[in-house]
Amino acid sequence: MREVFQSELLEVQERLVDISRSVVTILEKATDAFLTNNVSQADQALEISDANEDKALALDELVIKILARQSPVARDLRVLVSALRISASLERMGALACHLASIARYRFPGSAVPDSLRKTFEEMSALDIQLAKKLTEVLQNADVDLARAIQAEDERVDELHRSVFEVVLSDNWKENAMFTVDVTLASRYFERFADHVVEISSKVTYLTTGEWHETE
Amino acid sequence: MREVFQSELLEVQERLVDISRSVVTILEKATDAFLTNNVSQADQALEISDANEDKALALDELVIKILARQSPVARDLRVLVSALRISASLERMGALACHLASIARYRFPGSAVPDSLRKTFEEMSALDIQLAKKLTEVLQNADVDLARAIQAEDERVDELHRSVFEVVLSDNWKENAMFTVDVTLASRYFERFADHVVEISSKVTYLTTGEWHETE
Repeated sequence: MREVFQSELLEVQERLVDISRSVVTILEKATDAFLTNNVSQADQALEISDANEDKALALDELVIKILARQSPVARDLRVLVSALRISASLERMGALACHLASIARYRFPGSAVPDSLRKTFEEMSALDIQLAKKLTEVLQNADVDLARAIQAEDERVDELHRSVFEVVLSDNWKENAMFTVDVTLASRYFERFADHVVEISSKVTYLTTGEWHETE
Repeated sequence: MREVFQSELLEVQERLVDISRSVVTILEKATDAFLTNNVSQADQALEISDANEDKALALDELVIKILARQSPVARDLRVLVSALRISASLERMGALACHLASIARYRFPGSAVPDSLRKTFEEMSALDIQLAKKLTEVLQNADVDLARAIQAEDERVDELHRSVFEVVLSDNWKENAMFTVDVTLASRYFERFADHVVEISSKVTYLTTGEWHETE
């Protein structure tokens, strides 16, 4: 019985890693769409995200079946409850990435990114992609050091998020309201995406070490 | 054993209703702060939201204890898993309301709401408060008809959300970038708040009738 349970837990973990990998792909395509006005990449991001939602739903069903069959307690129970939360966060990350892709679609053939903020958004995109890749590793190896590194990197995303508002609210900002709306929302999506990475990695750290890192 | 379990389920439900009631209070204070530049209301919203996060955390712990002690299956198990998700959504709704309160704090003594969008935001505030109150009733009575009414009202929130962008992107919009940023984010917070109400009420409908209403 214990062996069956262990192999079921492993399957849950593998599925979380798989969903996390898809989120990386969605974000790569969505940021490419956002930064280079590439509508075909935007469409692909939206398509993969749809499939990912189905995967998350199927994972939740699996977790509920395991809970019913195995009646786990203590740490095993917490791992499964956390899996449900991680799956919800990963699904949300895919949706946030898709919002970036949608901005690109709306503005096509124009760009959603004004020149004055191009570097900032390139850095935010690269950071979020990096964070999503590290998260996949954390989920695969329960790597606690990596989980801590993630928290430090999130601070840089927050810094960039604040810097977007500094630029937009400065006297030098000459862009129209459309750009103001786009960059405000896009910056918020990047920041929330990174927040979810931190929340998930905190959960993995907690499950592995028992230490709880407050994420908010 | 079954009686103990029933009384534990009832406690979970009562706590969800209590947290949902607090979310109504947080939103009432936050929208008042946002619409009338009332910093003291903003502070109170933030304070109640902090307490609410603790309540949500305590509820999650209770649910995990019940899962461990009672090893529920079938519908009972689904009710408890849903309680975890509803608690996470309610916590998030409190946080979204607090973002509105924070906008008011940043802009004080000025207003975060330009005259041209005052009516829109008053309607959005009233609708979100109404939705949050109905949600409390849905959680209390598993009222499926009310859950359906909620889904219709959310459509009006989405309409208002789109209308904010129409105003901001029209030639008549003469406000500065600060207002553009504030109304863009505020409108998004109102819309997300209503989304969470719909998601939770769909879960209650599903648990009560077995019918799943897609919310996205």
